[in-house]
Amino acid sequence: MKRILLTLSYKGTNYCGFQIQNNGISIQQVLENALEKLFLKPIKVYASGRTDAGVHALKQKVHFDCEISFSIERLSMAINNFLPNDIRVLDAIEVPQDFHARFSAKRKTYMYVFTKGQIVSPILYDLVSKLDFNVNIQTMQKESLKLLGEHDFTAFCASNSGAKDFVKTIYDITIEEKSNYLIFKICGSGFLYNMVRIIVGTFIDIGRGKLPTDVIDKMLESGDRRIGGMTADAKGLYLYDVNYL
Amino acid sequence: MKRILLTLSYKGTNYCGFQIQNNGISIQQVLENALEKLFLKPIKVYASGRTDAGVHALKQKVHFDCEISFSIERLSMAINNFLPNDIRVLDAIEVPQDFHARFSAKRKTYMYVFTKGQIVSPILYDLVSKLDFNVNIQTMQKESLKLLGEHDFTAFCASNSGAKDFVKTIYDITIEEKSNYLIFKICGSGFLYNMVRIIVGTFIDIGRGKLPTDVIDKMLESGDRRIGGMTADAKGLYLYDVNYL
Repeated sequence: MKRILLTLSYKGTNYCGFQIQNNGISIQQVLENALEKLFLKPIKVYASGRTDAGVHALKQKVHFDCEISFSIERLSMAINNFLPNDIRVLDAIEVPQDFHARFSAKRKTYMYVFTKGQIVSPILYDLVSKLDFNVNIQTMQKESLKLLGEHDFTAFCASNSGAKDFVKTIYDITIEEKSNYLIFKICGSGFLYNMVRIIVGTFIDIGRGKLPTDVIDKMLESGDRRIGGMTADAKGLYLYDVNYL
Repeated sequence: MKRILLTLSYKGTNYCGFQIQNNGISIQQVLENALEKLFLKPIKVYASGRTDAGVHALKQKVHFDCEISFSIERLSMAINNFLPNDIRVLDAIEVPQDFHARFSAKRKTYMYVFTKGQIVSPILYDLVSKLDFNVNIQTMQKESLKLLGEHDFTAFCASNSGAKDFVKTIYDITIEEKSNYLIFKICGSGFLYNMVRIIVGTFIDIGRGKLPTDVIDKMLESGDRRIGGMTADAKGLYLYDVNYL
């Protein structure tokens, strides 16, 4: 029996999220179906974490165990033959038996993409969020530094998360303009339910002057979700990478 | 009665093409439905030309006549309220009564986008074509110069086109690598059915050495479609712009 780690990329638009659910087709279900077709028996996969409906992944990490009779170099292509075009295995490697896609993860990076202007290009409508007002990026960048380090992120978590440990470490956060786009990248030890989307939504509200600049301090101190900003749309969010070192 | 010219952008993936057809939902039908909802009577639109199923447009041009009781500045947004996210009006202006989106057009530009490598990103799977072999771009660029100017493009036209005039003028053609993409741009007086996709497919076959470098000369001389290359996939093709001056 070998433990295999996949690097998986997907467009989340047509799925109810990564995890198997009753209310729609999940990426996990489609992947497990593909693996069952390839290995001719049921295979359960374990991801680095869930992604919500409509959220995309550039490098999701997923492990599973299997008996494999051909070389691992051919595994990506073999699995891709059974997957739809909006889910692709980018890479497959063998990992030790005690490796776990979720519990071995050291850092995760998410990216969030806004397009500026009144009209979102129809070419990209399910890949970006709309930003149709001005924001002060310098203010946002300055305030974002307050998130760095270890904090209790209760105020940045959806109320129905069921989480027990709200303490996470943020290693890096960047907010950059690139041509017509505003791009957030956030790297941390882990993320609570909706945490990235609440961080992004709160900084947008700070940048447009709808929330005071000290709201980040107050959220970290009080743990009160209600004083933060909106939860940004799923379609602008990308699981960018997961690191194990 | 005013004549209005729209600049329209759309993602062609979910449509049977621009023109109304019996076998699916067309962009024209969706646009005419939106205009009927806005103006409360049937309105027929006239585009600069058709685009095929799966082909995208950055700047398609479409005209129609209407009685308008509000300012034209508000027209784009008013129409967009009745359109799905994969079709957007970018701009609306009034034009003279003798203007015609198709017959007044002087130049059209198409863009074709390949992504290189064995795996197409699932984020972009319906927006680019796959190029999973090496091509000699210098050879393609050199041969592309032969298309410039006025030629009989019978050999670059799908056999079922119903066209009568096969003589077109190509003003510019560029073939460029940008990071992981290979991008064609072709500007001409007009294009025959499938002409851009046959040009692109033929140059790819030249670039990979599957067709001899003199095939362009022979196609222009003979008018024989059969000696050319494949017709490139619709999903990599974009109507890039239409010019009236």
